[in-house]
Amino acid sequence: MTLTTAQLATAQVILDRCDALATHSSSQTGIERVYLSPEHRAVNELAAEWMREAGLAPWQDAAGNLCGRLEGSSPGLPALLLGSHLDTVPGAGRYDGILGVLAAIAVVSRVPAGELPFALEIVAFGDEEGTRFGATLLGSRALAGTWRPEWTGLVDKDGISLGDAATAFGLDPDRLGDAARDPASLVGYLEAHIEQGPLLEDAGRALGVVTSIAAARRLLVTLTGEARHCATPWILRHDALLGASEAILAIERIARENGSPATVGHISVQPDAVNVIPGTAEFSLDLRDESAEGRDLTWLAILAEIERIAADRGLGVAVAEAHTAPAVQCAAELREAIRAGIRWTGDADPLELHSIAGHDAMAIAAVTEVGMLFVRCRGGISHHADESVLLEDVALAVDALQAAVLARAARA
Amino acid sequence: MTLTTAQLATAQVILDRCDALATHSSSQTGIERVYLSPEHRAVNELAAEWMREAGLAPWQDAAGNLCGRLEGSSPGLPALLLGSHLDTVPGAGRYDGILGVLAAIAVVSRVPAGELPFALEIVAFGDEEGTRFGATLLGSRALAGTWRPEWTGLVDKDGISLGDAATAFGLDPDRLGDAARDPASLVGYLEAHIEQGPLLEDAGRALGVVTSIAAARRLLVTLTGEARHCATPWILRHDALLGASEAILAIERIARENGSPATVGHISVQPDAVNVIPGTAEFSLDLRDESAEGRDLTWLAILAEIERIAADRGLGVAVAEAHTAPAVQCAAELREAIRAGIRWTGDADPLELHSIAGHDAMAIAAVTEVGMLFVRCRGGISHHADESVLLEDVALAVDALQAAVLARAARA
Repeated sequence: MTLTTAQLATAQVILDRCDALATHSSSQTGIERVYLSPEHRAVNELAAEWMREAGLAPWQDAAGNLCGRLEGSSPGLPALLLGSHLDTVPGAGRYDGILGVLAAIAVVSRVPAGELPFALEIVAFGDEEGTRFGATLLGSRALAGTWRPEWTGLVDKDGISLGDAATAFGLDPDRLGDAARDPASLVGYLEAHIEQGPLLEDAGRALGVVTSIAAARRLLVTLTGEARHCATPWILRHDALLGASEAILAIERIARENGSPATVGHISVQPDAVNVIPGTAEFSLDLRDESAEGRDLTWLAILAEIERIAADRGLGVAVAEAHTAPAVQCAAELREAIRAGIRWTGDADPLELHSIAGHDAMAIAAVTEVGMLFVRCRGGISHHADESVLLEDVALAVDALQAAVLARAARA
Repeated sequence: MTLTTAQLATAQVILDRCDALATHSSSQTGIERVYLSPEHRAVNELAAEWMREAGLAPWQDAAGNLCGRLEGSSPGLPALLLGSHLDTVPGAGRYDGILGVLAAIAVVSRVPAGELPFALEIVAFGDEEGTRFGATLLGSRALAGTWRPEWTGLVDKDGISLGDAATAFGLDPDRLGDAARDPASLVGYLEAHIEQGPLLEDAGRALGVVTSIAAARRLLVTLTGEARHCATPWILRHDALLGASEAILAIERIARENGSPATVGHISVQPDAVNVIPGTAEFSLDLRDESAEGRDLTWLAILAEIERIAADRGLGVAVAEAHTAPAVQCAAELREAIRAGIRWTGDADPLELHSIAGHDAMAIAAVTEVGMLFVRCRGGISHHADESVLLEDVALAVDALQAAVLARAARA
């Protein structure tokens, strides 16, 4: 299908807006925008302006998510949510999450009020990545009604609690959970997102239908040996970093064998001095799998190996669970709507994809049905400044998301 | 030899002073005392008070080293230096360096002025460990005349330059090198120090003669891959931490085979986020050997292996040299004096030891002859809160150091 000038212009507006959002960063050396920060406030204000241009009256919910509503054929109907997140990891790209919010605004700006058998709501979540407070999906979990009051006690790397950050942001830390939506008020949730993998590019497709989102688990492993002078003979050493190095290589080997993506993204040692043998080494593990069972079997194999390594080196092992999420299936009806949307753009047999990456949809599945549309990204690169999408693919994504909304409406 | 009450009382004073110095720490969770810090000033003041009690008129030299002088048979004679350092690593013990300074004060307090054919000078160096500014032996290198003016530009982890720290400490940053001593004004340097290894304990000896100090080299290795989302398939990953883990295990294997002690005490990754593959990993390497040639051959083997690992994983390698020091031989005459000193305590055939750990004596060897006395420490533990010495061994160390001074005097 040949794209028209108007379609490409819509996509160009979205890419320009991605560039504008990218200027709001707490870091000089890359994009970083975390929950309840001044940058969070700034991008909510920008997106609110774009929602107003689309004819909406945006508001910020009790957890700092930015929302906008287009009424359906009568006021107060349940809503189909369209959205994604505006927060980022450190050193982020311009599209992860952001593209889904801007595509949702573009779709809503094309739909006349009062035409659909449900309301449309845009949601720009304030926290999906979990960069600031360790726990992830905070914005979408607040909306889904799975907020936990104790999260106000989480602290960031500067020692600021989530509760204090919420107060500084202008929110009531005791009422963040009030962002929860009544399931009866919702029809479902559709999210467009870059693929964060290479399969669409390899298959020569612009768009894909997500079937399910991987089960995930995040752990913090601490190995404890003995901090001693670097003159200590080999046989007397209990070097926690040597143990961690073996463990990290074992994680790679076992996770590859089991087909469970695994990443050690954080490591630190104490006392962290050039001439002292590390007495403790702490590292994170992010483990994914198509099923919670597969994920947990892989973890058991990894843990057994870490315990063997620690025993060999005379190290202690402690494991703390930071996050766990079951696999989430996309709803059949919404998968079919997205498939119909992609077909409308000219791809007769849309590719189906399993998502290894986590998404707001995982949290929203607790309160309503979810569906996801993946957009091709160059080289599968994400969480990196080199994140890149094609203008044409963005135009197709807006069309497909709009057509998916109409397909869902046709079945209402 | 049975120790007298007076000998044990001297040792008890030294241990009590070690405890008093240990209270001057910048850290709540362990001892840490770095160059040009408020804690450095505080311990210099304490040690100055003890030198005054020993009848000396102490002064601080241009680099912040604390000095005290006892004249010999006529004023202005060249001096035999006795000393060690008062700075520490993070999470330090109470004796590394400190014991040598306090033993020197104890010896000088026993010697009447005007008796020896040389002056005695105590030196308490302000920086041996190099914890604050990366470069090591700063205090002893200033005294040895090998200070480099560009070191004032070194910065600590808070971004404070050595020059600014010197100013805040009350020193002139442009004149730190004025601490240099004229070689003609020196007879030699004797240092007592805990062994930091288990050989004396294994042999059932309290004291040992150091033959030589290992050649050392410190490097910073940086591996560069690609920071990408943890959903990235294995075959597209260039994970800098997996490369670093392999490299660290290769360092252990090669260094053990070659008999060159090696330690990776520092590691960090970027962007250091739980769900992002590390794009860069940086780690330190501290490498020792009895000879500079052996050390450098081990490093070449390690570097070749790191380059192979990096090529396999598609990573870049950069290496920066942070410190290099040749092996230092203790002077035959001073080794003989220390051997005589230990024999005087009742050990007829003192154990000779090679020092893998670095010491101020390495720097002082540039300006005068050096000799070292090792004192047994429990379990060979050092650079750790569990550092421990026996009261009896401290008493013997003071006697041996005093007797070594007299043995050297007998040959003057």
